Amino acid sequence: MAMKVALLGCGVVGAEVVRLLQEQADELAARIGTPVEVGGIAVRRLGRARGTGLDPELFTTDAMALVTRPDIDLVVEVIGGIEPARSLILAAIKNGKSVVTANKALLAEDGAAIHDAAREAGVDVYYEAAVAGAIPLLRPLRDSLAGDRVKRVMGIVNGTTNFILDRMHTQGAGFTESLEEAQALGYAEADPTADVEGFDSAAKAAILARLAFHTRQVTAADVHREGITGVTAGDIASAEAMGCVVKPLAICQLSEDGSSVGVRVHPAMLPREHPLATVGGAYNAVFVEAESAGRLMFYGAGAGGAPTASAVLGDLVAVARNRLAGTSVAEGGHDTGLPVHPMGDTVTRYHLALDVADRPGVLARVAEVFAENHVSIKNVRQEGHGDDAQLVLVSHRAPDSALDATVRRLRALDTVRSVASVMRVEALNNAD
Amino acid sequence: MAMKVALLGCGVVGAEVVRLLQEQADELAARIGTPVEVGGIAVRRLGRARGTGLDPELFTTDAMALVTRPDIDLVVEVIGGIEPARSLILAAIKNGKSVVTANKALLAEDGAAIHDAAREAGVDVYYEAAVAGAIPLLRPLRDSLAGDRVKRVMGIVNGTTNFILDRMHTQGAGFTESLEEAQALGYAEADPTADVEGFDSAAKAAILARLAFHTRQVTAADVHREGITGVTAGDIASAEAMGCVVKPLAICQLSEDGSSVGVRVHPAMLPREHPLATVGGAYNAVFVEAESAGRLMFYGAGAGGAPTASAVLGDLVAVARNRLAGTSVAEGGHDTGLPVHPMGDTVTRYHLALDVADRPGVLARVAEVFAENHVSIKNVRQEGHGDDAQLVLVSHRAPDSALDATVRRLRALDTVRSVASVMRVEALNNAD
Repeated sequence: MAMKVALLGCGVVGAEVVRLLQEQADELAARIGTPVEVGGIAVRRLGRARGTGLDPELFTTDAMALVTRPDIDLVVEVIGGIEPARSLILAAIKNGKSVVTANKALLAEDGAAIHDAAREAGVDVYYEAAVAGAIPLLRPLRDSLAGDRVKRVMGIVNGTTNFILDRMHTQGAGFTESLEEAQALGYAEADPTADVEGFDSAAKAAILARLAFHTRQVTAADVHREGITGVTAGDIASAEAMGCVVKPLAICQLSEDGSSVGVRVHPAMLPREHPLATVGGAYNAVFVEAESAGRLMFYGAGAGGAPTASAVLGDLVAVARNRLAGTSVAEGGHDTGLPVHPMGDTVTRYHLALDVADRPGVLARVAEVFAENHVSIKNVRQEGHGDDAQLVLVSHRAPDSALDATVRRLRALDTVRSVASVMRVEALNNAD
Repeated sequence: MAMKVALLGCGVVGAEVVRLLQEQADELAARIGTPVEVGGIAVRRLGRARGTGLDPELFTTDAMALVTRPDIDLVVEVIGGIEPARSLILAAIKNGKSVVTANKALLAEDGAAIHDAAREAGVDVYYEAAVAGAIPLLRPLRDSLAGDRVKRVMGIVNGTTNFILDRMHTQGAGFTESLEEAQALGYAEADPTADVEGFDSAAKAAILARLAFHTRQVTAADVHREGITGVTAGDIASAEAMGCVVKPLAICQLSEDGSSVGVRVHPAMLPREHPLATVGGAYNAVFVEAESAGRLMFYGAGAGGAPTASAVLGDLVAVARNRLAGTSVAEGGHDTGLPVHPMGDTVTRYHLALDVADRPGVLARVAEVFAENHVSIKNVRQEGHGDDAQLVLVSHRAPDSALDATVRRLRALDTVRSVASVMRVEALNNAD
């Protein structure tokens, strides 16, 4: 008996899923042990039916009727956004269907409730495509590292911002110009807010933190989020002078005593030797540090119709196999309850470029401000002279609140004309 | 009720598994849903019991009695080698135990039989640790890419040879000197044959090919295998002159018409821009090209007690969860039956350095030999003059047999004094 799939949404990813289900029907049937059949496709407007080669009868605008239809086994949701996706997924679960979704926003906001509903109904909710597209990342974190202790997850999980910052480095272009290029090439949307302001990465960071630290306590709202719109050509030049590149990072980190987690999204300087520093263009990569496994990295295409569809189909095969075997994978049953600590408590390291008056005593005043805030200076150099004098400092690791207070205090010094660049610096070694 | 684990072998990996099972007992119990308990440890000599902090009563030299004991649920095999590991694993399976193993040699030789036995008994056989240590690789290939079509898997799966070739590049050292350094640092064994002659990589390549192409037809004996003992300082210099590095590769590749697979292990030149080119020291990395997912890379520690134990424990958690849920993952049920084609049919590209007589007509003779064998020359340059004259050529892609015939014919030319270096060149783009 065939597995019947209901597809919610038939945009770029949905159309690719349909195409692959048809084209690879025999292979998928062999791998699952039974054929997979598209039972229905919910779309907003019926015009979508054209060109898929599918029976137009399969298309419907009544998504709720589709996900509750008794003959449907699996629901693939690629609509995105919170509603109506949430209501449809919860209805599908309640009606005993397993779900494959690429919906990062929904999982970041309501993952715990969805996993609870799935556990109660004895069905699967798989979502590999929600983070870093085709890169197998959630399954390794959830399963392969189930016998290890993850310390830190640091990744480039947004291709648009990686592309923009990469262009700023390689072409010497400004932010606006690079964004426009990304838009022209289809890497950025007409309204780029979700990408450039870090909302997209924040949702993914919340999902990664929950999986890595086995805690249900993280939602997108708990993620400290800074976009890349403030990154200047000066920041890029400063990074290069230090042998670094600026990368859009999502970082999930266990506190040193293991009692809480920090989850943050912001651009940061990375040394060129760091494996993430070489990830160019719109590629994604995630670096995982675990107690026994050591350093792992996962690299690949983070978005696009075909890569995302590959992840959706991998989940679909797993979910279908589980269903055939009469089993399901309950997620989130084990909750460490680890809370999220505020950004101020996260230990970071700052790079600062200060436009200063070129006269004796300036460094002494600046150093005093660092000392007052209990922040040590790792290194400092002066660049230029007279009106062009700039002090470039890198701090040692300190609570972000202390670094933030240091910067605020420096801005108020009359010997500091302006703070030209402030950016966090991440090292290969967490304990550096 | 606790899951009882029998451990076969208590060397570096086994001791680490025991340590982690004790240290992380609470977390593992929470993740599995029931505690895990060491039920017995089979060792060759009982002296091993010392220093583990475990009840000496747990240790036994009678491994067969241990794996067939009715109270044992799971067997972890970290002895390695074909026998007695094979008999013990098959006995465990026949007695209804699920198995976690790190035994690449056994799986490469007898994987199909072991999976058959497991399927028949309704138990699991997991072996993530067998290839590339802690790097989650087999689970992504088997599960995450189950809805995709893998075209090529190319990896550095042996840390010892990667370390040796890395040293030859960075220190300008010869092979023997670099091997001695690897031995002094514990990266290479006293008898380095399994590593430097490619036997270790060949076993891993066979396992990767089976998973990637869903075929049962590949064993270690089908893998074309060349070691790194013949790599000279001259090869390294030639590679560097071309902007390449020499890497120890395992390559599993679908033929262009998709009707067969090539599986080979040999050193090859890789352009510096290739993601695998930057994998240094004893690290492992595997590059996967799939139709929809595109290019993926997995990177991490390929060996060592803790990383291998991390992979073993990840499998142990999965196997224990399956057992609690009353299910098992049958592998190898779907067999595409894709055969292995001979190395001669594999399409490759050669780099050649020829010591030649520096006189008119030499290049014409050399080019003629290429043409006679239907191999095109991609580029050629002359280096040095007079007695030091060298022709450096890179071919276009051609069947390996044609390239091999070309080299044999060149060796016989009287204008070619010697073939100073022959090495395959791999490109980022398979179709280059």
